[in-house]
Amino acid sequence: MSYLTQKLAKETVLRDPVHTYIYVQEQIILDLINTTEFQRLRRIKQLGVASEVFPAAEHSRFTHSLGVYEIARKITNHLELDYSTQVPGDGLWNPSERMITLIAGLLHDVGHGPYSHTFEHIFHTDHEAFTQAIITTAGTQINTILRRVSPEFPAQVASVINKTYPNPQVVQIISSQIDADRMDYLLRDAYFSGAHYGSFDLSFILRLLHPYAGGIAFNIIGMHGIEDYIVSRYQMYLQVYFHPASRSMEVILTNLLQRAHDLYLKAQDDLAVDISFIPPVMLPFFQHKPTLQQYLALDDGVLVTYFSQWRYVDDPILSDLAVRFLDRKPLKSILLDDESAKYLPSISQLIQEAGYNTAYYTAENDSYDLPYDAYDPKDKKPRTQIELMREDGSTTELSTISALVNAITGRQSGDRRFFFPKEMLRTNSDDIFSPVYAEFQSYITNGYLAAPHN
Amino acid sequence: MSYLTQKLAKETVLRDPVHTYIYVQEQIILDLINTTEFQRLRRIKQLGVASEVFPAAEHSRFTHSLGVYEIARKITNHLELDYSTQVPGDGLWNPSERMITLIAGLLHDVGHGPYSHTFEHIFHTDHEAFTQAIITTAGTQINTILRRVSPEFPAQVASVINKTYPNPQVVQIISSQIDADRMDYLLRDAYFSGAHYGSFDLSFILRLLHPYAGGIAFNIIGMHGIEDYIVSRYQMYLQVYFHPASRSMEVILTNLLQRAHDLYLKAQDDLAVDISFIPPVMLPFFQHKPTLQQYLALDDGVLVTYFSQWRYVDDPILSDLAVRFLDRKPLKSILLDDESAKYLPSISQLIQEAGYNTAYYTAENDSYDLPYDAYDPKDKKPRTQIELMREDGSTTELSTISALVNAITGRQSGDRRFFFPKEMLRTNSDDIFSPVYAEFQSYITNGYLAAPHN
Amino acid sequence: MSYLTQKLAKETVLRDPVHTYIYVQEQIILDLINTTEFQRLRRIKQLGVASEVFPAAEHSRFTHSLGVYEIARKITNHLELDYSTQVPGDGLWNPSERMITLIAGLLHDVGHGPYSHTFEHIFHTDHEAFTQAIITTAGTQINTILRRVSPEFPAQVASVINKTYPNPQVVQIISSQIDADRMDYLLRDAYFSGAHYGSFDLSFILRLLHPYAGGIAFNIIGMHGIEDYIVSRYQMYLQVYFHPASRSMEVILTNLLQRAHDLYLKAQDDLAVDISFIPPVMLPFFQHKPTLQQYLALDDGVLVTYFSQWRYVDDPILSDLAVRFLDRKPLKSILLDDESAKYLPSISQLIQEAGYNTAYYTAENDSYDLPYDAYDPKDKKPRTQIELMREDGSTTELSTISALVNAITGRQSGDRRFFFPKEMLRTNSDDIFSPVYAEFQSYITNGYLAAPHN
Amino acid sequence: MSYLTQKLAKETVLRDPVHTYIYVQEQIILDLINTTEFQRLRRIKQLGVASEVFPAAEHSRFTHSLGVYEIARKITNHLELDYSTQVPGDGLWNPSERMITLIAGLLHDVGHGPYSHTFEHIFHTDHEAFTQAIITTAGTQINTILRRVSPEFPAQVASVINKTYPNPQVVQIISSQIDADRMDYLLRDAYFSGAHYGSFDLSFILRLLHPYAGGIAFNIIGMHGIEDYIVSRYQMYLQVYFHPASRSMEVILTNLLQRAHDLYLKAQDDLAVDISFIPPVMLPFFQHKPTLQQYLALDDGVLVTYFSQWRYVDDPILSDLAVRFLDRKPLKSILLDDESAKYLPSISQLIQEAGYNTAYYTAENDSYDLPYDAYDPKDKKPRTQIELMREDGSTTELSTISALVNAITGRQSGDRRFFFPKEMLRTNSDDIFSPVYAEFQSYITNGYLAAPHN
Repeated sequence: MSYLTQKLAKETVLRDPVHTYIYVQEQIILDLINTTEFQRLRRIKQLGVASEVFPAAEHSRFTHSLGVYEIARKITNHLELDYSTQVPGDGLWNPSERMITLIAGLLHDVGHGPYSHTFEHIFHTDHEAFTQAIITTAGTQINTILRRVSPEFPAQVASVINKTYPNPQVVQIISSQIDADRMDYLLRDAYFSGAHYGSFDLSFILRLLHPYAGGIAFNIIGMHGIEDYIVSRYQMYLQVYFHPASRSMEVILTNLLQRAHDLYLKAQDDLAVDISFIPPVMLPFFQHKPTLQQYLALDDGVLVTYFSQWRYVDDPILSDLAVRFLDRKPLKSILLDDESAKYLPSISQLIQEAGYNTAYYTAENDSYDLPYDAYDPKDKKPRTQIELMREDGSTTELSTISALVNAITGRQSGDRRFFFPKEMLRTNSDDIFSPVYAEFQSYITNGYLAAPHN
Repeated sequence: MSYLTQKLAKETVLRDPVHTYIYVQEQIILDLINTTEFQRLRRIKQLGVASEVFPAAEHSRFTHSLGVYEIARKITNHLELDYSTQVPGDGLWNPSERMITLIAGLLHDVGHGPYSHTFEHIFHTDHEAFTQAIITTAGTQINTILRRVSPEFPAQVASVINKTYPNPQVVQIISSQIDADRMDYLLRDAYFSGAHYGSFDLSFILRLLHPYAGGIAFNIIGMHGIEDYIVSRYQMYLQVYFHPASRSMEVILTNLLQRAHDLYLKAQDDLAVDISFIPPVMLPFFQHKPTLQQYLALDDGVLVTYFSQWRYVDDPILSDLAVRFLDRKPLKSILLDDESAKYLPSISQLIQEAGYNTAYYTAENDSYDLPYDAYDPKDKKPRTQIELMREDGSTTELSTISALVNAITGRQSGDRRFFFPKEMLRTNSDDIFSPVYAEFQSYITNGYLAAPHN
Repeated sequence: MSYLTQKLAKETVLRDPVHTYIYVQEQIILDLINTTEFQRLRRIKQLGVASEVFPAAEHSRFTHSLGVYEIARKITNHLELDYSTQVPGDGLWNPSERMITLIAGLLHDVGHGPYSHTFEHIFHTDHEAFTQAIITTAGTQINTILRRVSPEFPAQVASVINKTYPNPQVVQIISSQIDADRMDYLLRDAYFSGAHYGSFDLSFILRLLHPYAGGIAFNIIGMHGIEDYIVSRYQMYLQVYFHPASRSMEVILTNLLQRAHDLYLKAQDDLAVDISFIPPVMLPFFQHKPTLQQYLALDDGVLVTYFSQWRYVDDPILSDLAVRFLDRKPLKSILLDDESAKYLPSISQLIQEAGYNTAYYTAENDSYDLPYDAYDPKDKKPRTQIELMREDGSTTELSTISALVNAITGRQSGDRRFFFPKEMLRTNSDDIFSPVYAEFQSYITNGYLAAPHN
Repeated sequence: MSYLTQKLAKETVLRDPVHTYIYVQEQIILDLINTTEFQRLRRIKQLGVASEVFPAAEHSRFTHSLGVYEIARKITNHLELDYSTQVPGDGLWNPSERMITLIAGLLHDVGHGPYSHTFEHIFHTDHEAFTQAIITTAGTQINTILRRVSPEFPAQVASVINKTYPNPQVVQIISSQIDADRMDYLLRDAYFSGAHYGSFDLSFILRLLHPYAGGIAFNIIGMHGIEDYIVSRYQMYLQVYFHPASRSMEVILTNLLQRAHDLYLKAQDDLAVDISFIPPVMLPFFQHKPTLQQYLALDDGVLVTYFSQWRYVDDPILSDLAVRFLDRKPLKSILLDDESAKYLPSISQLIQEAGYNTAYYTAENDSYDLPYDAYDPKDKKPRTQIELMREDGSTTELSTISALVNAITGRQSGDRRFFFPKEMLRTNSDDIFSPVYAEFQSYITNGYLAAPHN
């Protein structure tokens, strides 16, 4: 038997509270889990700063990756049992696609780094590119294992993840509007955060999957189960991923890294600027040319270790932001809209007057900056639609028949907020800045930026 | 109103999947949660290396500490509602003990460091002493807050935690055989690990608590609920905390730190020994004289950050053990007993022949080394017993009437194991050490060390 | 202390998997639970025929009534703690309304009979009128207990249930778009059926309740939690309460009772018609003049006991329908719309040709016949709207700001179906009616009634 | 393909909150579920009177029977996948035993009647004999279906249930110390009652099953999971099945049926005794000669329907006991032992003096009368032991290595109680019987019968 399909002498399992067990049946899966690149995911939290708001959401990308693998495994089992191809071109499932599907599911996030979204914003790294690199670069443990299957296999696995693999069924199991990735993270984030909006009926949905020539459709008879999944996602985005306090911690992290980066740039021109606070492992990122090896050396603990040292640097903004990040001192925020945005200069001015450099202590931020991927067939960069399959094999797009999904589709959900130091909300009258604070507060009505009341 | 009992304008809550919510009602509780010393607990995993075996058990001492607070809050609510003292000396609950109880519950673990048990073993630190220090040392944020109550208050809180506080009811809520600490960690470790043996009926047990002059007793009518709790603890110890693979990862960590320490000692005599791998933040621990400040600078991420650098040091044992720890390469183990222990020298010899320094690649370890605290009223250092209260107010000790608990009481559960490199189990015949491996394996029968079979 | 507020010597609890415990603290609550009228609810299933489709949904109106009481208790605790009235007319909660609220919650469904909706349809009884009667009629155990409070008290309790009680807060806790009744049945039906769509975050919603002069509003900050509740209801209606197989069993029950009733009417004119199958306890219902005593003598078991005897009566339709009901032989159904409805006469004709009396073996039924109460502020008979309260105390109606709720509001969800004997779908070619069956089947496309295909 | 193994065109599922789904894959399983004898189990509660104490425990033998089938299905899948027989006599699993195992699991309880244990005690029926009869008697729908497989098949299925089937593996899956029956009822009773002691880790245990020549053993590596299951059973017996209030309701039911039976016997000699209260459907049971048809006509609803009519009969004891049963007026109870039993005549005398016929208003009852089947290899009628299998295939009996199980083994758990009317505990001093009550109460100390205190 080839290495790709070689079974373990005895199936092994990993305990997982979301799926009860992760079942590992093939040698190659176990070997991939045991690589240094994959084990590194244990040290990167799945939700980044969200655990500052939902304290128990401390789970890692390691367990999520195992969960994606496990759902992909359940899907391929279901497809193989009920819909194995009978004649070429019948549009059904080809069981020989099983292993590449499982491996792509396991590895789809392997290039994630610490606090990816924020970090990438400042340092222009790209976790998707690193995922491809880890898989296809000779010398990584993962590449070495995949290459044992065939010289082309690493590139094939990578192509599933970047959606260029020819079989759309395999691609859609790993990335589409209802894929193993999203199904695992909704269930997992709900379980660990305690915000149960993310729960939906996985067993029910798995039974609906139906392969066809165009990819994976869902039996129309279970349309309401799909609706429930879509609404769960919507709720998790609004209530957890876009939570104002969580976004506020991201603002602090962004501004902290921005400040460090600005100091680095300044030091290029001005030798007096001390940038000894930048450790060797981080320097390549300031120079925008990290190697794969250097990238893999980062994890949450590494960043936080150096942030801890930044508490004591001389630059007052850098050290203060480091403290705010580590000791969880979120900014506060108010909602605004196009109309009320005209007051932003006035309140920024007041924040400046109270002694804060607004470049590092405020931010305007709407949740659409975040990687929200609500189902939208009208999107400019259209995603795979959710197709429902009727008894006779014809299909129809979900939002055409679901009023509930239609209500969410194409709408930008979320909100637009302005973040500022909590100190601006002080009401203690013996503070020297009290009049400034009071004027600032007069611009807030019911949590919204508004015409000042006196 | 005094600062100690000052209510928040509006109760605030933190989401927690174990207790649904953590309810914060007083200003001082919120202030303590927001200290740098308490926030640091987010960066220390509750179960240390156990997440290497139960991958989802990644929760921190931060959420556990909040959970202990929340259970203590529920207990004091129950005692205040049903058993408030009526006349002095009636042995009932004094509601003015509420706040010190909650605060002691919140802070009881605040001195924990990264991988405490292993780390302390090598570096002779003591997390209990640091807990006392953080609370009572002028200058910590926690001490500053507690001192606002009264100059004596920090010492009072500390005395609850070290069990010298005069009111035994307060002490027993925080530390006894059934206390807020154990109840939270059993439920929490079960929830996060997915090993549900730790589940028991918290609501039921809370209803049984009955204060009396000697402390806290339990209504005898619910004796089986107490039995269930005791058995849950027993199961969690055997199945999770004493899991062989988890202990094996602890062995690796111990040997890694031991190797570093041995090199440090050697360098005192031999300047040729390179100890530049020891970072400034760890040096005070090798010198056995860390300050409180230095201690507080450590967390899981800091240790792991430096272990990551140790992958590349010249000392082959240090670098290999760092890789084994970070990339999760557990040792294997076999069971042994007094009789079969006589074969240990023989198999150690074989391990040496296969090229491993047995000082760093093997260990004998029984689970009694670990802080197992099964209920045992006959213990040399007797713990508070679990007392059951009859209708007429008289009490009786649990194991006198529960056959089930009696079966566990005073018994040393766990097992004695010998750990060794997994490579010794290789069966590949073209390896140069194959004959050594084969001889080694002949000493194993059904997972036990035994007379060699040929 | 008055009887109304007299506490039990010791709080008593009932185990409940939905709320963990039902807490009973007052004597009057315990006394009401122990009445013969309330205990009778144990013998009436909450979901009637739905357990024919979701087999585990066998729970009774007894446990639901306890659950409504428990949620009402939690609500009044929350309102009393956080929003007790300070000055007359401040629109806050009056703690003296506690007991009437709890009692109305406990008793709100006490007049339900077996398979209420179907039964009432045929026999023109009204469970709401019987609820009022049980509470206000001298001689019932419930009335006797309530009268101990005051002569007017029974009528006051009844007025809360029929919504004429002056305090709108009390009324809305018991019946409104988000009331203790709906919150319990969604959670309970989800728990017992295993269709978890009904789950929502009760703890979260309870924290949002805010009394005001107009009733009960919800803190706008938790708007998405309310959305989640509304969507849960929507899902439970579509997936459980309106399930086609469940509606089909209701059709059989309706037709069974209709047949019995038709025979009874026929016997008034034709003495040859044998109606000895109607037992004395059911006769008053055929005569449309049951007394309260006679009504209370009915429960699920009584109806089913007599249906079991109807298996053996001579009338072939009555006996066949009894067998179909007892042995669970649901009708099949197809969807239709205004356009395709024109084919109904043709297919009814075919059913007749196959030997079925269409008056008793078919039905057209849309789910709007069922007591669906989706949130709709534009309803002719407008219900209490869900009002969201802003920080400054102003309110706004939910659907004005929730796109999701707006998508459901005022829409008639559900579907229109035609029910017929399963035998019509036979494909066995050696049946004498095969050509009739085949022609019938030609009218079905993808589960819809449609132009016949050949 | 033969009828026995004929697959459904499409797998069908039933929702079940305990197992998520019950998967039905073969035509014969669906046909058996749809029989009148099997559907009848919907009308018989699994736990009889226990729902009087745990109100939500209203689930039926129907859902339990489906659950046993589902666990048996999971077991046979596991055995077939991992342990299919390779050579005759290897002691492994023969996949052709699958269907008989599933069918026996589904039907194992089909002969249960209403309140079986109590009913059988009075009327000398035997539900196990009726299970055999339903399966093997020509003319039942179940027999007709089974006979389609082969003329011998009904007897073969029956032999699995009565443990005479030659393959011990099949027998042990259905009835042994850890079988599909017990595993389902523990999980199910725990889920529905809300008493979570019955929870154990089904997925874990299913992975341990290992067939061998002697039946089914369990991998020794999971010994603690087996311990956990045994302790769960122990707890469910003590806390739910033996609950004093539940046993008290059984006493009332027993005495109610006994009274009816005594009146029937009396009427044989004395024509003046009115036994018109005995309905035709119950008469054969008083005559001790019910036919199978008559037996199948009984269910919970039928009994309760007639008990409802007994409320109004002239015999004051019969009518009073009927009211106590229907309106849930449990007797009270006290514990006693061999020593204190000497006071029974004295307190019985007092109960008589207070006006109660002690033959119908008291009972002495220990929980060993109930069908407790704690694991006990030393039992006179020894049951199948739980065998643990080592790596080399040798086995050892569980209690020899588990201290916990050993603590329970062979011990009679439960307690001995004396039941009496609640009225005896009255303390109201203006009752005519107050002195009698007071004297009665003087015999009770801490819930135990004891020497009278004055």
